[in-house]
Amino acid sequence: MARDVSPPRGMRDFLPADKAKRERALRVIRDVFASHGFEEIETPVVEDFERLHSGLGGDNEKLAFSVLKRGLDKEALEAAANSGDAHDLADLGLRFDLTVPLARFYATHRAELPSVFRAIQIAPVWRAERPQKGRYRQFVQCDIDIIGEAGQLAEVELITATSAVLSTLGLEGCTIRINDRRILAGILDYCGFAPERFGSALISIDKLDKIGTEGVVKELSETGPDAAAVLGGLLERIEPHLASGGVPMTTADILSVLPDGIDSDAVADLETLAKSLTELPSGVEVRFDPTLVRGMGYYTGTIFEIAHPESGSSVGGGGRYDGMIGRFLGQDVPAAGFSIGFERIVDLIEVDGAYVSDSVVLVHDAVLDSADLSLSTLIGIKSELIAAGKRVRLEKRAKNLTPVLDRAREAGFGSFAFVSAQTTSAKDLVFKDLA
Amino acid sequence: MARDVSPPRGMRDFLPADKAKRERALRVIRDVFASHGFEEIETPVVEDFERLHSGLGGDNEKLAFSVLKRGLDKEALEAAANSGDAHDLADLGLRFDLTVPLARFYATHRAELPSVFRAIQIAPVWRAERPQKGRYRQFVQCDIDIIGEAGQLAEVELITATSAVLSTLGLEGCTIRINDRRILAGILDYCGFAPERFGSALISIDKLDKIGTEGVVKELSETGPDAAAVLGGLLERIEPHLASGGVPMTTADILSVLPDGIDSDAVADLETLAKSLTELPSGVEVRFDPTLVRGMGYYTGTIFEIAHPESGSSVGGGGRYDGMIGRFLGQDVPAAGFSIGFERIVDLIEVDGAYVSDSVVLVHDAVLDSADLSLSTLIGIKSELIAAGKRVRLEKRAKNLTPVLDRAREAGFGSFAFVSAQTTSAKDLVFKDLA
Repeated sequence: MARDVSPPRGMRDFLPADKAKRERALRVIRDVFASHGFEEIETPVVEDFERLHSGLGGDNEKLAFSVLKRGLDKEALEAAANSGDAHDLADLGLRFDLTVPLARFYATHRAELPSVFRAIQIAPVWRAERPQKGRYRQFVQCDIDIIGEAGQLAEVELITATSAVLSTLGLEGCTIRINDRRILAGILDYCGFAPERFGSALISIDKLDKIGTEGVVKELSETGPDAAAVLGGLLERIEPHLASGGVPMTTADILSVLPDGIDSDAVADLETLAKSLTELPSGVEVRFDPTLVRGMGYYTGTIFEIAHPESGSSVGGGGRYDGMIGRFLGQDVPAAGFSIGFERIVDLIEVDGAYVSDSVVLVHDAVLDSADLSLSTLIGIKSELIAAGKRVRLEKRAKNLTPVLDRAREAGFGSFAFVSAQTTSAKDLVFKDLA
Repeated sequence: MARDVSPPRGMRDFLPADKAKRERALRVIRDVFASHGFEEIETPVVEDFERLHSGLGGDNEKLAFSVLKRGLDKEALEAAANSGDAHDLADLGLRFDLTVPLARFYATHRAELPSVFRAIQIAPVWRAERPQKGRYRQFVQCDIDIIGEAGQLAEVELITATSAVLSTLGLEGCTIRINDRRILAGILDYCGFAPERFGSALISIDKLDKIGTEGVVKELSETGPDAAAVLGGLLERIEPHLASGGVPMTTADILSVLPDGIDSDAVADLETLAKSLTELPSGVEVRFDPTLVRGMGYYTGTIFEIAHPESGSSVGGGGRYDGMIGRFLGQDVPAAGFSIGFERIVDLIEVDGAYVSDSVVLVHDAVLDSADLSLSTLIGIKSELIAAGKRVRLEKRAKNLTPVLDRAREAGFGSFAFVSAQTTSAKDLVFKDLA
């Protein structure tokens, strides 16, 4: 049993230094979202199997971990063996995102929620992906969602609050790219793609950063060279902007890259966003990117994604998904959300340790030996310091104190003192700086 | 699909008011434990199936939720149908406590941890118990553990830190009852029970509060009247103390209820505890209760449990489990831990809402209509207030504002102001008290 003691495949333990950094970052995120008027909720980590596999989670549904029914008898096992479907044996599953549980939560509690509900969810999700660098099977998402607001006020609040989080965490150089599913549909329609080809066209456009305009045109030419050529012309106009994350978010620039006659509501919404996203902190840029696709099928309007120069993939994203709540509630309610990929963000930031100046180490002699320090004196001194607002850690005196004190300094402890049989109260302590 | 939208059986959603209270309480718990020198860690919510079912979890192992293997084929399903054992289909399970994962974590990371490791774990666990009032299938435990300290310093730090948490949370009237597994064994030996009868004797003693001394003696007389009679005499000496939670924690009182010749190390340890638990906050009492048993099989020394007059069952407990780490590590390491039952504690406390005076509601007119308030002005005013340190929530003007403002007050908002087309900056706002 002492041999294999790793955490489960693709999952991580967090040692104190990492855990402390994560908790400090989560506290910042909670507090900033709260200051923007959002309210935190929580749902169980599992949802009913059927609900989790209702088609709203896209490809992620296939990655869900399933929970075995309790009390399965031989008969049930034989039935599953006959059907060949292991899912007959599961009644619950670990959530793979926070959006499906939110839609379920909203349907459950709508009567107790305000007409416009601004939700925070900060919680782990699970996906049985093939483990690889930077991808984990358990990871934390930080989502905000606004349910019940049809207008662009929702998008503006989501983008403003998320930008404030990025800025407060000290994450400089983020670009939020914005697009609209209706713009994408309008572009494809303008180019002459038939609606049934939109799906494959979007898949090609989504690869623009890898294969370039030429590659997209080549892929799409096989099934319709004319439409592909028109799209190629549009993409050539857009591509020069993409190095800086997209087109500047002004009406003139937005219109300069779009063909005439594109969905006027979507363009008007983009113009509103351009005018209203004026309160973003420095260090966060917003760009219009008409080639932004985002994978999930449930988006209906604005979509957005956060890019950071040091991260190969997006560090967050979201959009409007007006049809989804209705799938659970039986009645359509407008909704939009923004999700921060916490694992990627936390790797990019430094978060100052708490308490440094107030954190002290007491290096103490052995206790309880007759001639030595008594346990009650030691704990009395520790309590005295805690009561004075200190964080106090005890360490036993050792021949080589260097590794002990190094570790304490890394954990944010600022000074240390020796406690011996001669020490009777905190007043006797002589603190030395750990810096 | 709109019909059944409850959370899974025995599990709960948390609405904003409850979630805010929980997060505030968790923040207090984290901060107090940290001030006492403990460090937080985190493990994945699942552990390998075999490890979770290694016999250390006692009856809780039977309550574990199991996670279905991915990619099960017909052959695997048929094998399980033949064996009749559904567990052949699971490779992971949701943890049922935080102690088994801690032991696994310590074995994984020992080289990176200090020789005395003081761990905090604050996290949910899952048990497939029959749902009933006050029992949930997902619930949060707050554990502290000290690994690598063989002396009573561990117990003293655990009890002192836990008492400080209870007191900081404002939970008055807690009694921490203390006993030692070695004392229990000594008592049974003194009474004349054979070691193989210790298990059943402890089960009877554990029922003392329900069936009284007479009941315990009656149960045990069937298999050995003499030993049962001696035990009855001892219990009669102890019983008068139990109304106040146990025997006062002084050497004289401890010795007054114990027969001579009981394990002298255990008595010496109790005396040390009695002398060293002097730094407990007012409102927390400590008592020696030689009838305290605690269910888990892994305890080897001191055991303790928190009672609160308003809770029928214990609100926390723990003890020394020197043999357990060795089961994972292959080498014995002393350990002791204390677990707070967060769900019971959070129901008993009031936690003040944050930010009340700094939290404001902006009741705004419709935005984006030509003659009305512009979205950019509204978001500008909101941002101005946030930058000044306020928490700001937007609410649309409605005919009946009472429910909106009532809800905001309950969520800790202190004042509100109207924003209309005439408002151009935060300076124009006239705040009214929500109290």
